[in-house]
Amino acid sequence: MIKAGIIGATGYAGAELVRLLLGHKETEIKWYGSRSYIDQPYGDVYRNMFQLVDASCMDDNLEALADQVDVIFTATPQGFLASVLNEGILSRAKVVDLSADYRIKDVAVYEKWYKIGHKSPQFIDEAVYGLCEINREQVKKARLVANPGCYTTCSILTAYPLVKEGIIDPDTLIVDAKSGTSGAGRGAKTQNLFCEVNENMKAYGVASHRHTPEIEEQLGYAAGHPITISFTPHLVPMNRGILATEYAKLNRKPDGSLPSYEEVKAVYDKYYKEEKFVRVLEKDVFPETKWVEGSNYTDINFKIDERTGRIIMMGALDNLVKGAAGQAVQNMNLLFGLDESEGLDLVPMFP
Amino acid sequence: MIKAGIIGATGYAGAELVRLLLGHKETEIKWYGSRSYIDQPYGDVYRNMFQLVDASCMDDNLEALADQVDVIFTATPQGFLASVLNEGILSRAKVVDLSADYRIKDVAVYEKWYKIGHKSPQFIDEAVYGLCEINREQVKKARLVANPGCYTTCSILTAYPLVKEGIIDPDTLIVDAKSGTSGAGRGAKTQNLFCEVNENMKAYGVASHRHTPEIEEQLGYAAGHPITISFTPHLVPMNRGILATEYAKLNRKPDGSLPSYEEVKAVYDKYYKEEKFVRVLEKDVFPETKWVEGSNYTDINFKIDERTGRIIMMGALDNLVKGAAGQAVQNMNLLFGLDESEGLDLVPMFP
Amino acid sequence: MIKAGIIGATGYAGAELVRLLLGHKETEIKWYGSRSYIDQPYGDVYRNMFQLVDASCMDDNLEALADQVDVIFTATPQGFLASVLNEGILSRAKVVDLSADYRIKDVAVYEKWYKIGHKSPQFIDEAVYGLCEINREQVKKARLVANPGCYTTCSILTAYPLVKEGIIDPDTLIVDAKSGTSGAGRGAKTQNLFCEVNENMKAYGVASHRHTPEIEEQLGYAAGHPITISFTPHLVPMNRGILATEYAKLNRKPDGSLPSYEEVKAVYDKYYKEEKFVRVLEKDVFPETKWVEGSNYTDINFKIDERTGRIIMMGALDNLVKGAAGQAVQNMNLLFGLDESEGLDLVPMFP
Amino acid sequence: MIKAGIIGATGYAGAELVRLLLGHKETEIKWYGSRSYIDQPYGDVYRNMFQLVDASCMDDNLEALADQVDVIFTATPQGFLASVLNEGILSRAKVVDLSADYRIKDVAVYEKWYKIGHKSPQFIDEAVYGLCEINREQVKKARLVANPGCYTTCSILTAYPLVKEGIIDPDTLIVDAKSGTSGAGRGAKTQNLFCEVNENMKAYGVASHRHTPEIEEQLGYAAGHPITISFTPHLVPMNRGILATEYAKLNRKPDGSLPSYEEVKAVYDKYYKEEKFVRVLEKDVFPETKWVEGSNYTDINFKIDERTGRIIMMGALDNLVKGAAGQAVQNMNLLFGLDESEGLDLVPMFP
Repeated sequence: MIKAGIIGATGYAGAELVRLLLGHKETEIKWYGSRSYIDQPYGDVYRNMFQLVDASCMDDNLEALADQVDVIFTATPQGFLASVLNEGILSRAKVVDLSADYRIKDVAVYEKWYKIGHKSPQFIDEAVYGLCEINREQVKKARLVANPGCYTTCSILTAYPLVKEGIIDPDTLIVDAKSGTSGAGRGAKTQNLFCEVNENMKAYGVASHRHTPEIEEQLGYAAGHPITISFTPHLVPMNRGILATEYAKLNRKPDGSLPSYEEVKAVYDKYYKEEKFVRVLEKDVFPETKWVEGSNYTDINFKIDERTGRIIMMGALDNLVKGAAGQAVQNMNLLFGLDESEGLDLVPMFP
Repeated sequence: MIKAGIIGATGYAGAELVRLLLGHKETEIKWYGSRSYIDQPYGDVYRNMFQLVDASCMDDNLEALADQVDVIFTATPQGFLASVLNEGILSRAKVVDLSADYRIKDVAVYEKWYKIGHKSPQFIDEAVYGLCEINREQVKKARLVANPGCYTTCSILTAYPLVKEGIIDPDTLIVDAKSGTSGAGRGAKTQNLFCEVNENMKAYGVASHRHTPEIEEQLGYAAGHPITISFTPHLVPMNRGILATEYAKLNRKPDGSLPSYEEVKAVYDKYYKEEKFVRVLEKDVFPETKWVEGSNYTDINFKIDERTGRIIMMGALDNLVKGAAGQAVQNMNLLFGLDESEGLDLVPMFP
Repeated sequence: MIKAGIIGATGYAGAELVRLLLGHKETEIKWYGSRSYIDQPYGDVYRNMFQLVDASCMDDNLEALADQVDVIFTATPQGFLASVLNEGILSRAKVVDLSADYRIKDVAVYEKWYKIGHKSPQFIDEAVYGLCEINREQVKKARLVANPGCYTTCSILTAYPLVKEGIIDPDTLIVDAKSGTSGAGRGAKTQNLFCEVNENMKAYGVASHRHTPEIEEQLGYAAGHPITISFTPHLVPMNRGILATEYAKLNRKPDGSLPSYEEVKAVYDKYYKEEKFVRVLEKDVFPETKWVEGSNYTDINFKIDERTGRIIMMGALDNLVKGAAGQAVQNMNLLFGLDESEGLDLVPMFP
Repeated sequence: MIKAGIIGATGYAGAELVRLLLGHKETEIKWYGSRSYIDQPYGDVYRNMFQLVDASCMDDNLEALADQVDVIFTATPQGFLASVLNEGILSRAKVVDLSADYRIKDVAVYEKWYKIGHKSPQFIDEAVYGLCEINREQVKKARLVANPGCYTTCSILTAYPLVKEGIIDPDTLIVDAKSGTSGAGRGAKTQNLFCEVNENMKAYGVASHRHTPEIEEQLGYAAGHPITISFTPHLVPMNRGILATEYAKLNRKPDGSLPSYEEVKAVYDKYYKEEKFVRVLEKDVFPETKWVEGSNYTDINFKIDERTGRIIMMGALDNLVKGAAGQAVQNMNLLFGLDESEGLDLVPMFP
């Protein structure tokens, strides 16, 4: 049995990790870390876990934790892991970080968008960006995995094959993303109260959201050169789910024509046909967040618009599963040589 | 492997059965019956099942089905099973009926509340009312299980120990129940449109809902005599979940005092302490539907009101799981001698 | 023009007062009091008011306010008004208090249920309980109006005629009430976050909610003697609306029969036929919160259950309008001799 | 008093017209047309109108209607009005058509996108496109007003000043729009059931939605030449509200720099400063649908993205008010020389 510790176990992403790991046959949770709830029974904080988890919350002492477990998940605020990580910890336990601390290779970019200094840049290079479908082999050999953001996982997977194969012009890429409210976390803020979110919809972080450079970096690798995109997140009155609607100019073929549906579909299939957790839908069936709720799937499809020469790509995932805890477990499975889908055979719940 | 067939696989309860059985290690679904969608790929009707179910929908021929499977689940309109069931079918396959056809022992009561004639009353006697926690031993030996209704499962489990042990006066019992909208089914009716249900709450079937006689019959067995109760269902703007708030007069002890919290708690524990799927919560923690969503649990608690001499009992479950498909699987597990919780170790999803 | 001041203008009830008074032809708001937002433009706090309200928030200085306005609305926490009210204020301005400070005539009852001392009990006697349909004449002559609670307005109006006329036994009365989340206020609490309330339903304050003694006092006046009832509030995932489902034993007529539908209907009509804001629905049409949303109406109906000898009464209102700000405006209209419905001719919004 | 008739009074837009006209001081509704509910009391179909509307539903006989009223509102399916309109009707009553029949000047474009033949193209030329803020003077002189679509009103108003003044390149315009579910109408379709829409989000009509040519035509007039845009609508789990997020390349100034915030703001102010129903928000405050709910306002703002050279424009309105019935009333006010905001002084309802 793999022994796992979770730091930040009482946030929504941490709680989802608990839900998934309770159903994982090869793992045992040894440490429910939560600074705010130390010594409180975990089942008192998340009452869905009543009688399922007996443990109480513990502190966030990574040094102590590293001695007791094989893998540490950090579902913590930006900057926390960077401020405490050291070689000793990494030499004793693998770390899957759900924060953004090691996602961006260029420290200056990180510090500019996150507006905090980075306390341990020496680990950035070795950290592997844990988008499993793309970096699978590197993850297997890693000690430190930077688990991707929810918006970024959805945005990147949706456009990746077309950027990689030069089907679209990446500098025309516009990502209009819509997220359920669990992405905003469990902090008690007026703006996230039921009555403020319900029956409401808004954009936020316009032209300034922190997931922008993460998408640009990863799709830039695919493009083979740095790219600049537009990314706009929106808050939707639902608990879970991200839908990314992405627009880009199609590169015309030498004869001036646009690529056909079949040609584009073949490109998606090249990358995803063997991927269990990415489902490219049938023609003219567009992703809906409800069809992946509670599961690790990302549903993707596209539509070619002959009139404008653009393609509209759409992707949907559950922000707490494939967008956070599910992908973290997928990364753990890779790190420990387990079946990649162990603990993740969750059928989407509908309705 | 147990071979299972589902008639009515494209209703919400049927689809939930599919979700649960896909995760059941000892079962294989051989027949996705749906009169309305014959020959359509099941994954086209429920797109959450895309790539998870390859089969297409079939008709509702129970005769043919009985030859091919070990167990038949009928998630069909009232009267359907009663109109087609016969000895030949029952001799070849076990039947778990999610409709009301065999739940009520008195045909006259059935016909009065359901306003249809009963076509095969000869099977009513042998049918076992599949409330597993109460009729476990009879279910194990049954051929035909009448799977309880969603409101009834919740209402009965919440009050059962106190009725059985004479703690409350059952004729003072008032059940005020609130249900998510999936209980209304997938039929295209104006009253169930998003805009009619959302931001709205109403009672319906007041003093006339069909689950009333079912609750009365079962709690009457517990009381040892026929009882009459008030039952009022309400429609709540959420997908899943039933909350039953139940009121009754406490029987005073010989010295005129009311039973104490500890005494009542002990009665609940007597019946449910060993029950995996019934969780009696800690003092003053009241059930919430979200804490059981997606799972087979029923959460229960109570509050003694010294001022009025009444007790307020509360129970919560997921109407599609413990209130329908989950209990059906639990019954199947009992019928076939499997671990009762096989396929049902679902951690509630929050948020 | 009547000059009005609002203390607590940035809570949900206060903001609803602003919405209603902006449409009131005889009133002008002179003071937007909000301790938390002093000097902030009101339209920054409630952006629906952008360009509609130019004023900034002011403090809660009632002495200063009383010099400038004709009427003061206090939508403040329990205990606030009691701690600052004095004869000087009351001699200069009428006061409509949306808190509970002057609703309960027996100070000991207030202090027991609210768990705070009452700082100015000398004004309790003169305060008029502002349930307009019942205390209209007293309100007209008052200086200080105790505006009823949201649950209480709904619960009392629904049962009042039947208690008053002895149709039901008030000691068997059970009120099961369901409320939208705006009733919980705008305070930033984890339990009121979108993800905690959405897709969830729960009871709270079971056998201990503060609106209980208020209902008991008022219905006790109607009954002619003190009564004790059961009251259970529930939180519903919607913004606005209260639905009260009320159960009571019908008193049998001398011949042992139950009163008929027509007899009960006649009793309701006796009290409400001329009331603009109480609508007794047609037979077998049950109230829905959405049908009164945004308006000052209370919709009421009932069902006689011959089987149990009980009657089920149902009432629905918008907790922020008839349950708070709308009734406060109705009281103001009475206080100043205006048309009682001035500013309140709001057609319910559907959907 | 202006006498008004409504054909299609039992759809959501028709019902909203009723709500608004009941509060309109100069209008009296004489005809509640609804083919599906003939002879049923209107208050039975929309119970929010109980006791507010006494009339019963009538048929859709425009000939008879034109004799009795001054203005006819048609909130009917595409093609209906075109199939019955004639000179006689237009000579007797003004017509405000909420369908798309006369919105598009080029019959071929209409027939291509709507896939029906146009039965009375002879009236297309004289019909005025009723986007009041832009075509106010023409509306005043019209007999036949083509009331704009909900998406189109929002999409056009949001971008209009920047297109008109050449600030953006209109052929780079991408409109990503999100709508509440009332936009889908009251028809009983499975896809619009509560359980299918709730907790879900999806795009639909991708690259094929009928509002596309309407936006293109109107913004093309502003640009001075035909334009082609991308438009993608999405369904959001809320009753009311449209949010349009629009992306376009900013035209650089002669010196190569982008226009500044102040310069763009000045352009918006030029067109909207005097417009009561268009509110350009303060810097970095982005529109939210809840802030305009129930009202005739459109809230607009923008953000310049220096990194991409794009501007992100955002607009929000209530699809049933400014997006349908409210604008229809605004057009009626213009047609009859009334105060343009008569009946439309509705304060947005929050929460």
